[in-house]
Amino acid sequence: DFNYYGFIVPVLNTTAMIILFGVFIRYNEESDTHWIEQRKAKNISSDVENDFYYRYPSFQDVHVMIFVGFGFLMTFLKRYSFGAVGYNFLIASFGLQWALLMQGWFHSLDYSDGKIKIGIENMINADFCVAGCLIAYGAVLGKVSAVQLLVMTLFGITLFAVEEYIILDLIHARDAGGSMVIHTFGAYYGLSISWMLYRPNLNQSDRLQGSVYHSDVFAMIGTLFLWMFWPSFNSAVTDHGDGQHRAALNTYLALASTVLTTVAISSLFQKHGKLDMVHIQNSTLAGGVAVGTAAEFMLMPYGSLIVGFCCGIISTLGYVYLTPFMEKHLKIQDTCGIHNLHAMPGVIGGIVGAITAATATESVYGVEGLRNTFDFDGDFKDTVPTRQGGLQAAALCVAICFGVGGGILVGCILRLPIWGDPADDNCFDDEPYWEEQSLKNEFNNVHTSLLL
Amino acid sequence: DFNYYGFIVPVLNTTAMIILFGVFIRYNEESDTHWIEQRKAKNISSDVENDFYYRYPSFQDVHVMIFVGFGFLMTFLKRYSFGAVGYNFLIASFGLQWALLMQGWFHSLDYSDGKIKIGIENMINADFCVAGCLIAYGAVLGKVSAVQLLVMTLFGITLFAVEEYIILDLIHARDAGGSMVIHTFGAYYGLSISWMLYRPNLNQSDRLQGSVYHSDVFAMIGTLFLWMFWPSFNSAVTDHGDGQHRAALNTYLALASTVLTTVAISSLFQKHGKLDMVHIQNSTLAGGVAVGTAAEFMLMPYGSLIVGFCCGIISTLGYVYLTPFMEKHLKIQDTCGIHNLHAMPGVIGGIVGAITAATATESVYGVEGLRNTFDFDGDFKDTVPTRQGGLQAAALCVAICFGVGGGILVGCILRLPIWGDPADDNCFDDEPYWEEQSLKNEFNNVHTSLLL
Amino acid sequence: DFNYYGFIVPVLNTTAMIILFGVFIRYNEESDTHWIEQRKAKNISSDVENDFYYRYPSFQDVHVMIFVGFGFLMTFLKRYSFGAVGYNFLIASFGLQWALLMQGWFHSLDYSDGKIKIGIENMINADFCVAGCLIAYGAVLGKVSAVQLLVMTLFGITLFAVEEYIILDLIHARDAGGSMVIHTFGAYYGLSISWMLYRPNLNQSDRLQGSVYHSDVFAMIGTLFLWMFWPSFNSAVTDHGDGQHRAALNTYLALASTVLTTVAISSLFQKHGKLDMVHIQNSTLAGGVAVGTAAEFMLMPYGSLIVGFCCGIISTLGYVYLTPFMEKHLKIQDTCGIHNLHAMPGVIGGIVGAITAATATESVYGVEGLRNTFDFDGDFKDTVPTRQGGLQAAALCVAICFGVGGGILVGCILRLPIWGDPADDNCFDDEPYWEEQSLKNEFNNVHTSLLL
Repeated sequence: DFNYYGFIVPVLNTTAMIILFGVFIRYNEESDTHWIEQRKAKNISSDVENDFYYRYPSFQDVHVMIFVGFGFLMTFLKRYSFGAVGYNFLIASFGLQWALLMQGWFHSLDYSDGKIKIGIENMINADFCVAGCLIAYGAVLGKVSAVQLLVMTLFGITLFAVEEYIILDLIHARDAGGSMVIHTFGAYYGLSISWMLYRPNLNQSDRLQGSVYHSDVFAMIGTLFLWMFWPSFNSAVTDHGDGQHRAALNTYLALASTVLTTVAISSLFQKHGKLDMVHIQNSTLAGGVAVGTAAEFMLMPYGSLIVGFCCGIISTLGYVYLTPFMEKHLKIQDTCGIHNLHAMPGVIGGIVGAITAATATESVYGVEGLRNTFDFDGDFKDTVPTRQGGLQAAALCVAICFGVGGGILVGCILRLPIWGDPADDNCFDDEPYWEEQSLKNEFNNVHTSLLL
Repeated sequence: DFNYYGFIVPVLNTTAMIILFGVFIRYNEESDTHWIEQRKAKNISSDVENDFYYRYPSFQDVHVMIFVGFGFLMTFLKRYSFGAVGYNFLIASFGLQWALLMQGWFHSLDYSDGKIKIGIENMINADFCVAGCLIAYGAVLGKVSAVQLLVMTLFGITLFAVEEYIILDLIHARDAGGSMVIHTFGAYYGLSISWMLYRPNLNQSDRLQGSVYHSDVFAMIGTLFLWMFWPSFNSAVTDHGDGQHRAALNTYLALASTVLTTVAISSLFQKHGKLDMVHIQNSTLAGGVAVGTAAEFMLMPYGSLIVGFCCGIISTLGYVYLTPFMEKHLKIQDTCGIHNLHAMPGVIGGIVGAITAATATESVYGVEGLRNTFDFDGDFKDTVPTRQGGLQAAALCVAICFGVGGGILVGCILRLPIWGDPADDNCFDDEPYWEEQSLKNEFNNVHTSLLL
Repeated sequence: DFNYYGFIVPVLNTTAMIILFGVFIRYNEESDTHWIEQRKAKNISSDVENDFYYRYPSFQDVHVMIFVGFGFLMTFLKRYSFGAVGYNFLIASFGLQWALLMQGWFHSLDYSDGKIKIGIENMINADFCVAGCLIAYGAVLGKVSAVQLLVMTLFGITLFAVEEYIILDLIHARDAGGSMVIHTFGAYYGLSISWMLYRPNLNQSDRLQGSVYHSDVFAMIGTLFLWMFWPSFNSAVTDHGDGQHRAALNTYLALASTVLTTVAISSLFQKHGKLDMVHIQNSTLAGGVAVGTAAEFMLMPYGSLIVGFCCGIISTLGYVYLTPFMEKHLKIQDTCGIHNLHAMPGVIGGIVGAITAATATESVYGVEGLRNTFDFDGDFKDTVPTRQGGLQAAALCVAICFGVGGGILVGCILRLPIWGDPADDNCFDDEPYWEEQSLKNEFNNVHTSLLL
């Protein structure tokens, strides 16, 4: 009767992690006590020149998005709030440890001593990597067990690290806010898994698939923290100085624009022009996804508004038409509608990035600005904008392929009948996985108040 | 049957915004790719000297106040939480775009090329501008439609930009945290509109005008994020260095002091010394409003405590006596009690600012400190503190006049019978404006749990 | 019938505070208008060299932990959410004012002019000091009145300031994140008070001692904001540069590790491998407590994981076995289980700190790094790591003694029958202390929805 996985898997994970961290992971130059000597040797005038101060405020915002943003966004279901917040917490905590290793191996491994040197930028990148898996969780929310989520995260992080290495290091595409690397990959990964795990009789859980009034308000906490901190997400790992400044500004504008179009389209498709909370909770965020790649480029303020405008429309229409269509005809059950919030806007983001890169000119960017923004340096010092546009488009294809391919592969593994996933009439329910004390109390409470 | 406004108004807004941004708005020096060249030319030693790093953490805190703070503070009504958070989200997103334009035209327009150059400080100021309109929303919460709110915001932002230009640029008053510019203006603007939209039969909605247990807890989320981040609000646009430092410190102290007096007065006026959640949710914030103007001056730590002390008393007494009086005798229905939280503390803040400025001396501020703090420079280099005190007082009058006058004007427009506002027995209810799925679920849920 | 205390105590407090602040407290060098002159005199090149910019983002995170983190963590009880958030708000606001004075007298008093000079670091330390009392509140949650809490805070802050002075200044121990100074002290202080206030008939309130579904979700808001911002807590007052960088990184890793072991152990001890919300809400945080002292040392990334791993196990086992045992056999009723979240992890943190300090070597830290990290300077310039390890252990004992001794003393005072504490059958209930409007509404609401 005992759920061995729930005990063994996390303990194994942690133990493995301790050993691997012991072998591979060390502080980097700026988080090591030797920094004080190095600073003097390198004649760095001030303590504030430590990368920590450039990135820590953004890191904390990203951290809030990962744990409160994603966690609470998924609390909208009437009886799956524990699973939404709790499993999100679990897989994000696991994922970020694994991500430090995987991203380290592919990107930051120091060949001189075989160690991965970590600091604030690695912490942000680990959170980013986790975001891909949390997006995927949105597609299967309420239909999988915690152990399945851990497996999904283990493979997801690994695939992410490879895909990121190919896109950023080999192809040399730019993707500051991860429209391609994070959102496109994560969404197609989740959708493919959901397709592999298709449940024809999911309607047996229909009674639990809606929201209640306060669960919708909880979900708005997630929406707002994602929305507010998205400028930090898209600017967290961009260039010091004008790069971070511009990325935050573009994202701020794109998101503001999305809210208005979402409201317009939502009201257009409801009886009496009413608004639908699902759209307000999700589509309002599409602009932040779509501006991810181009946020650090000279997209121009009106460019950001246009991106936000288009995404608000497409994302909301997605909820109205595409989600039911995909469920009925493509056998893809997408609980949170990640196709509308991450997949389509992510692809748009990749395309916008490619176009913006391809049309970049020295007159707009300045000679040094152009080189600096696109990192035309080292092996890539002869790259020209048009070619960079092509590379960006290639990167988008890589992200889609990794998402779909990886999802099908992992989906096969998750179909094995050993993971303790819930029955069709038990989906979207916390009861099978959480101590039901408070559920019982709820009943007594209603009962008591009626007798007052 | 279709609500055309809900579709057309946002789409029109967005389209207009894209065109106007295309014509007028560009990156400023520090958010443009040319910055890397300019930095070298100007011999700026470090990337961290970009205004972004001085202001971005505060900006994010202000952003949270605008969207989560104001949004959740208004969720206290039992059936208007969607409207509170959702409409707040809508009008803030619209307002900040419009504010970038209006504040730009009046304040940052570069006459050499006719463009508005924006960066992090404009983002903060746009959020500030929006705050004025969100305050006004508090007075009419639950009694107007989304389209009325958009109209209210459109005019509110415009009036704000003019008023701000007169107060800060022409009069040359100082108002770091916006006691006058934001709170006094916003509150009187909202109260005047509410007066123009007086509903004699509002008691038909009495059943919906209270809170439920968890809606009060949601509102505390708003209260606390406003309270915690208010030091960032008052210091966000003050001088680099000691200016921001002092403003944050003074605000921190004033707010701490207000909480204690609010508890004391609340307990004094309830049977059995009980506490009233309405006071804890609102009056605890009054100190932050009242210290807004003087926070960057040498108010001294004990001065901050005194301001907080007085405002806690006045604001709580306002909820006990003034709000019912105003509703009954002045025909001003003030849903959230903004008169107690913003109007009175805002006026006090203006007065405190005038007194603190008038009594400033070189012995306390230092010669350079005095010039720097009050910006006695350029056209104003011969201003003396006593004269500055007079200017501050004049600024307060301007804020009140703009608030009352603008509110009456906009109130007239909003009385036109074309905006789809709710009937008297339908106020404070999400049902007419939001898809009722979750309301229906709620019922089923209670029903189901009784049958368990 | 009127509760005089509720009125008089806060007013007295505030008045006393204004007088004491007037006499003792002034701006420090960096928050004073004279800074602009001093900066030039000291040839400081940039405004960003003001301590404000090194610490303000962390301060705001700590501030969120104190007010939202602790406040919402305690909302889990079905009918004590107002008391949890509201009293937390009250005592934290009061405590931080008193802490500025007490910590100032013991630590920052400038003997040349008898003034305490405050700035951003004092604001953080005041918040830290308050944290000790909020931890103690966790043990007596729902069983004491607001006035008892104020008394508890008044003495708690005073004891804290003395204990901190002994540990940090006299013994010269290092305790960046306060494993000893804050958590060990606070927890034993609270547990001793709870022991003194033992209620044999507390089971009369059993009906109110559980959670409901949404109160558990509210509590997760507290958990997550504590969890996410703990890296800021442990790094807020560490050395500029690598010190803050390393402290944040270590804490990030320890916390991630704790989540996994908590889930494993929680699932091991429930029927069917289910998870218990109490563990997820609390034990997941234990790693942050335990890494508090050593976070700024060269604990190494794998060291952080090990600390997190152990604490997740011990803390969760504490909830399963120790809390019931302590209630039954030791007469310690610990509402929130602070023994498992703060006391045991705090002691572990002290021990880990002592070991890490004792084993520090110049080859790992570098010559300057070692001196800098442990502040081997001035009177302590001849201290060696092994001796520092001994000092750390001595500090831990001081923290425990102050906690237990202070708690027993204050417990005696709180047993006086004058404080208006709730009856045994009235504990864990907001009704006696808060206007019951929303409680009444709740009933009507359920009633109404049944009649729909």
